[in-house]
Amino acid sequence: MALLRTKLRKLVNEKSITTDYTMTLLNKTIEGIEKVSIDPDGNIKNRFDKLAIPAGSLGRLEEFATIYASIKGTPDATIKHKVVFTMAGDHGVSSEGVSVFPQEVTRQMVKNFLNGGATVSILARHVGARVVVVDCGVKADFMPVDGLKIKKVAYGTGNIACGPAMSREQAIKSLEVGIDVFNEEFMNGMDIIATGDMGIANTTPSSAIIACLTGADLSKVTGRGTGLNDNGVKNKINVIKTALDINKPDHSDPIDVLSKVGGFEIGGIAGLCLAAASHKTPVVIDGFISTAAALIACAIEPKVNDYLISSHTSTENGHEIALEKLQKKAILNLGLRLGEGTGAVLAMGIIEASVKTFTQMATFTDAEVSTPCSKKQFAAK
Amino acid sequence: MALLRTKLRKLVNEKSITTDYTMTLLNKTIEGIEKVSIDPDGNIKNRFDKLAIPAGSLGRLEEFATIYASIKGTPDATIKHKVVFTMAGDHGVSSEGVSVFPQEVTRQMVKNFLNGGATVSILARHVGARVVVVDCGVKADFMPVDGLKIKKVAYGTGNIACGPAMSREQAIKSLEVGIDVFNEEFMNGMDIIATGDMGIANTTPSSAIIACLTGADLSKVTGRGTGLNDNGVKNKINVIKTALDINKPDHSDPIDVLSKVGGFEIGGIAGLCLAAASHKTPVVIDGFISTAAALIACAIEPKVNDYLISSHTSTENGHEIALEKLQKKAILNLGLRLGEGTGAVLAMGIIEASVKTFTQMATFTDAEVSTPCSKKQFAAK
Repeated sequence: MALLRTKLRKLVNEKSITTDYTMTLLNKTIEGIEKVSIDPDGNIKNRFDKLAIPAGSLGRLEEFATIYASIKGTPDATIKHKVVFTMAGDHGVSSEGVSVFPQEVTRQMVKNFLNGGATVSILARHVGARVVVVDCGVKADFMPVDGLKIKKVAYGTGNIACGPAMSREQAIKSLEVGIDVFNEEFMNGMDIIATGDMGIANTTPSSAIIACLTGADLSKVTGRGTGLNDNGVKNKINVIKTALDINKPDHSDPIDVLSKVGGFEIGGIAGLCLAAASHKTPVVIDGFISTAAALIACAIEPKVNDYLISSHTSTENGHEIALEKLQKKAILNLGLRLGEGTGAVLAMGIIEASVKTFTQMATFTDAEVSTPCSKKQFAAK
Repeated sequence: MALLRTKLRKLVNEKSITTDYTMTLLNKTIEGIEKVSIDPDGNIKNRFDKLAIPAGSLGRLEEFATIYASIKGTPDATIKHKVVFTMAGDHGVSSEGVSVFPQEVTRQMVKNFLNGGATVSILARHVGARVVVVDCGVKADFMPVDGLKIKKVAYGTGNIACGPAMSREQAIKSLEVGIDVFNEEFMNGMDIIATGDMGIANTTPSSAIIACLTGADLSKVTGRGTGLNDNGVKNKINVIKTALDINKPDHSDPIDVLSKVGGFEIGGIAGLCLAAASHKTPVVIDGFISTAAALIACAIEPKVNDYLISSHTSTENGHEIALEKLQKKAILNLGLRLGEGTGAVLAMGIIEASVKTFTQMATFTDAEVSTPCSKKQFAAK
């Protein structure tokens, strides 16, 4: 505990001027995170053994149901409320030609999410999840509407090729945006959440973060984003290299990394992870950007990792390296690279399916199905 | 056409004594199958290009939506009715110790499906699919109830370690059971189907079929089934070897293979594939047993393959070899090995998601989202 407090002081106090409120919310959230024991008393395994299926035949569905029940602390936990948070923010670095889309697309897509015409809107309806769109720092103003939370830290980050993305205060604030929106929505019912992002150029800060926190070479963690050609990728690598050289993020300090080369929506997603963990709520991590955010959350508090489930392997170069650092094996591998929370929402449907099989399936006894006993000499242990 | 007739004569007439009805149903079904042209006029690709997402960012969801629309012949095709057929049958070879479960489990599980307590029942409810359970040849009688089609070819197959599984007439009849139940259900609405199986010991005939139709070594396509240990697998390989030696199935004649070493539910699933193809209905193939059946259907009429979508890669040894023969890449890889249609139902949910994204997503124009044009020098072709 003393160690945790020292760490928090380092993270929050020493390098920043923050209000009491700010310190309290982030610190309180981090302090509330407990490690997850997987099936500590064997109750989950015991129930699986009684279900009318061959042992182990559900494969990873058993793994997902076990993680879910372990996080919730009971084999009877079901999933009623599913929420996907699509966190939006703009990036000054978009002026460096690192995306094939113009910056105004961030604002336009936020409207598309709210109108229900975007991919994440459609997939969320498909799996029965609520979509909560959060303006973490879009370079435009929105009228308040249902489904949108306006929590703007600033009108876009600074251009990381010229200076820091944001101040340390803003980095903490962006984390707290995620904590805030989680806490607000938690009261409306929330059993599991999915993360998503929208921010033109945000694979660039994500690559920078992943390079910082995994130690991987930039060329291994920088990809085509929304559709760069080979020259575009070369330019992007140079831009990130410049950003790292100029800003010198401290690899051992995740809030410094976030402030120097991050993004407001990335901080927001990291905050969601922290808040969800503090409320014993599983977090389904989307693709490249969400995984970069998850790395920040886990660097702030490693216990967060116990609450994270990786949804899919993105085709964005470097995603697998980031997943490896988190020691996660994704649920889906469908060649997605869209963001928004699309992969996470699809995977949330699979996790829900696994929880249903575990909680609803008849046992051998209930269904009057014979157990595998008649051919013991050939039965695997 | 003349070639097709010759082939049909070989398949149905020359080696069997069949009724006119029998000949008509199978032949008519096969004759009704047309090749699928993938997006012949480019309409599907054109619509994808207009959707408000980066080109190609949906990955395989684009592939699934394209296959679905191509089979249906229109980009506007939606999915309303989803059906999973769980085909049940018993196997004489179960007396050879090739399964750790006793034979009566087939009957018991049929009841479990009908009571809604089995995994496939739960997953079908999860994705909104109807379950149709078919008694293709269970060694027990059932009372007629909703959701069960009693189409028993016989009370279980013969023990293939001693002689043929069934007569050629019965093999044709089992194919026609699949065609029959498809045709009956088609009238209740059916846009896409999933296949499933239940039959204690049915990985044994499936391995035999896969060995026959792929040419793979038995050790490469024989697995643990519901939980054999190493000695059990050795025994199983020996049993299959004996079955192939005794029955000498003609590899070039899929109906001979089905009759010598197959199963009634396997024939039923192959029949479903034929019928679905003849009605331009996509078929989501479950795991090991369903893939063995799909190999038979494709050997009877190769055009069937255009209608098949592989749902998941089973951990059963040899499934990947069978998928390779069909040139299919599965949607999911979750370590499942349960059968019943469980993997197919889950994948059907993903396919439906892909069709919804394609048919419901806003275009760049609708959503007033800027297209990727401002940084042309870095845009991939």
